[in-house]
Amino acid sequence: MHQPLEIEMSQAPESRDVDPEITKTLAEYSTGISFDDLSAEAVEASKHCLLDWIGVTIAGLEEPLTQMLIEQAEADGGQKQASIVGDGRRVSTSQAALINGSASHALDYDDVQTRLQGHPTVPVAPVVLALGEKDGASGKDVITAFAAGVDAECRIGAYIGMSHYLKGWHSTATIGTFGAAVGASRMLGLDSEKCALAMGIAGTQAAGLKSMFGTMCKPLHAGKAAQNGLFAANMAARGFTSRPDVLERHQGFAHTQTEATDIPAGLLGLHERFEVRDALFKYHAACYMTHSTIEAIHNIQRKANLVPDNIDKVEVTVVTGAVDVCGIPTPSSGLEGKFSLRYCAAIAINGDDTARLDTYSDEMVKEPHLVDLLNKVTVAEKDSLERMAAEVTIHTKDGVVHYEHYDAGIPAADLDAQWDKLVNKFRACVDPVLGNEKTEKIIDKVKHLDKVDDISELAALWA
Amino acid sequence: MHQPLEIEMSQAPESRDVDPEITKTLAEYSTGISFDDLSAEAVEASKHCLLDWIGVTIAGLEEPLTQMLIEQAEADGGQKQASIVGDGRRVSTSQAALINGSASHALDYDDVQTRLQGHPTVPVAPVVLALGEKDGASGKDVITAFAAGVDAECRIGAYIGMSHYLKGWHSTATIGTFGAAVGASRMLGLDSEKCALAMGIAGTQAAGLKSMFGTMCKPLHAGKAAQNGLFAANMAARGFTSRPDVLERHQGFAHTQTEATDIPAGLLGLHERFEVRDALFKYHAACYMTHSTIEAIHNIQRKANLVPDNIDKVEVTVVTGAVDVCGIPTPSSGLEGKFSLRYCAAIAINGDDTARLDTYSDEMVKEPHLVDLLNKVTVAEKDSLERMAAEVTIHTKDGVVHYEHYDAGIPAADLDAQWDKLVNKFRACVDPVLGNEKTEKIIDKVKHLDKVDDISELAALWA
Repeated sequence: MHQPLEIEMSQAPESRDVDPEITKTLAEYSTGISFDDLSAEAVEASKHCLLDWIGVTIAGLEEPLTQMLIEQAEADGGQKQASIVGDGRRVSTSQAALINGSASHALDYDDVQTRLQGHPTVPVAPVVLALGEKDGASGKDVITAFAAGVDAECRIGAYIGMSHYLKGWHSTATIGTFGAAVGASRMLGLDSEKCALAMGIAGTQAAGLKSMFGTMCKPLHAGKAAQNGLFAANMAARGFTSRPDVLERHQGFAHTQTEATDIPAGLLGLHERFEVRDALFKYHAACYMTHSTIEAIHNIQRKANLVPDNIDKVEVTVVTGAVDVCGIPTPSSGLEGKFSLRYCAAIAINGDDTARLDTYSDEMVKEPHLVDLLNKVTVAEKDSLERMAAEVTIHTKDGVVHYEHYDAGIPAADLDAQWDKLVNKFRACVDPVLGNEKTEKIIDKVKHLDKVDDISELAALWA
Repeated sequence: MHQPLEIEMSQAPESRDVDPEITKTLAEYSTGISFDDLSAEAVEASKHCLLDWIGVTIAGLEEPLTQMLIEQAEADGGQKQASIVGDGRRVSTSQAALINGSASHALDYDDVQTRLQGHPTVPVAPVVLALGEKDGASGKDVITAFAAGVDAECRIGAYIGMSHYLKGWHSTATIGTFGAAVGASRMLGLDSEKCALAMGIAGTQAAGLKSMFGTMCKPLHAGKAAQNGLFAANMAARGFTSRPDVLERHQGFAHTQTEATDIPAGLLGLHERFEVRDALFKYHAACYMTHSTIEAIHNIQRKANLVPDNIDKVEVTVVTGAVDVCGIPTPSSGLEGKFSLRYCAAIAINGDDTARLDTYSDEMVKEPHLVDLLNKVTVAEKDSLERMAAEVTIHTKDGVVHYEHYDAGIPAADLDAQWDKLVNKFRACVDPVLGNEKTEKIIDKVKHLDKVDDISELAALWA
């Protein structure tokens, strides 16, 4: 029988700081920046993230997991403080964070940030929007809090390093809890000391196992990160205590959940580069690692306009290891189709709308003409390719060879073009639910979000 | 810049079960046992845990951390489903689990179980009592759900092993989440498949860092474990999905949070021995590792009735390593007094009430006559002693030597004597808050809890 020595140790173990003061540095930075400190690109990118987030949240509203969370919230009861996005019913800010955070990750169609090793917007947006709606905050306040939360979580992701994710932690869930806490701390006006304590309360709740991928728990992780981060900031505001050095202290977050930390990576370009600028968006409702293949084929098609009958073979090359992620050779379900480079290549060649959710249905993956195309696709790997990139070579029956390289790991250079693509995606997600008029009004409101005096004007549009 | 391969991997990684089916085995066991399957001692011990839990919860009600959680619950709003213990206000079952769970661990005066490496009752009792109060469950239902929850968490503790706690995880928080989920699954009448899914939803939320000890987050951990476990069972009941093998699967709970598992330890004596029987109780409001020293001195005093002036020196011997836990030589605060073997020896010799919270006050630790006594105490360590035990040798000025050995790690042999001691402790905790009449009524109700038709009769007594 184990009889641990420390079983009743109510005092803190002696702090053995391995990385002095990174929690404090990030808390001071996060609470110190103002809207005017943000670059124009950071403001613009924040609007992109928020527009995209509203779109995928509304698209995820009718998912069974979202509906179950709404039913539980109704059973628990609560103040009517913030709306369920796209639904209009109001729940407490805590419930809104959980429901909207989960809904927005339900389709796995939300944005990605490589330094976070996960999805930056889903833990932060539901918190800052719910608090903004409750308190009538301005668009500038929401943008600033959002950008600060995303910055904090992405920097913590870079500091924590890859071993965290590789061990089995879902970074969006674990590290996202800090992003939510920082975003909420901003909305609540906490000073840097309180923000550091909120990060402590957040870090001791941070959880989420990658082994739950493929179940409703994966989107739940985003919702719980949002809810727990909001709770952390609310309690810090009330005077609740924690440790102000949760990231670096002995038996703290890094010590328990990663093998190696990297302070310089975490603090790289603080005050100069804004992590939100590097958000990557999904324009195809499939695994992000299929996106370069789809984009490369679209680029070939734009030039060559190939017809399926004239295609002899399609060679796709991705980085070594990518086949483990999205290399299902012949998918037998729509979900498997999202993780099949061959299927994604086939629908791209065929001109199907890769942005539509129903392009990845159990029926579509069995369509004979798509299966014929898929059988022309071979997938190879090589070490020297960029992590998110693909090379596609198409041989036609009349002997022409088309080649394209694409790297979806590079943030878009042209933010205006990115906005236009996101607007198209937004319309596809939202128009069927809310109709054209509301869809366009939301787009317009988000476009000018920094001019909005009271964020509840935005919420009124999705009711 | 990190560009992880798996960043968009929505599918589950292939399951590499290291310990087949322990989650399923525990889910089947937990949902399969009935009140009549429990041993008489298990029923009796459950009543002891619940009485003690009500007492320490009421004693913790006025702590600032409890009051902050109540304020947050009032700000969030909710159905009036279950009572705040000792307060009488009603909140949702989710809020009751959080508030009561945190209050009961606020003073660190609640019970201990060595196989859990933590506190068994604080994550489970608030859940089964809140659901019981809401639904008017019987005393037998509550006892069975409570015993099942404690059994599950203690067995998971034995399975997970010591490295989990030593790494920096607060077992009461992490593993306690499973206990709460199992207790709630019983109260909600889930079958074993749903219970295993509830354990999955629980395990992916389980969190709590030992580095937060000494802050309000330590008691919060117990409340969050209760609340998250209840949420897990509620969602499983609604059809929410997770993995049914969270404990053992690749990138599951054990894989991410311990170095070595032990299936035989986890399943030891399943259906025959009940973990709740081995709960250890605190009769002194200090670190559990000081308890053997205090008991040994009390035993000497019962025989020898020494007066402080006649004491020459006091030699305390504990197991190697214990001084790191409770070896503060000269405490400067009441909290430090709880972690000072010398101070605890001094108050025991002096006849102070070691059960009273104010015996460990900032003023008391500076009392000159106690400091004089403390200066006569030496503390030594040796490897061969039991983990929780102590040897005390007292030399008097007239040359007599008194020796006692005590091991507080052994569950009480005499449950009737344990009940009497717990009743005394309960009176000390509750009488000042609720008065004599209610105090005695609660004791009587818990004594006959298996005869209670509707558990809300008990809740009515602490309003």
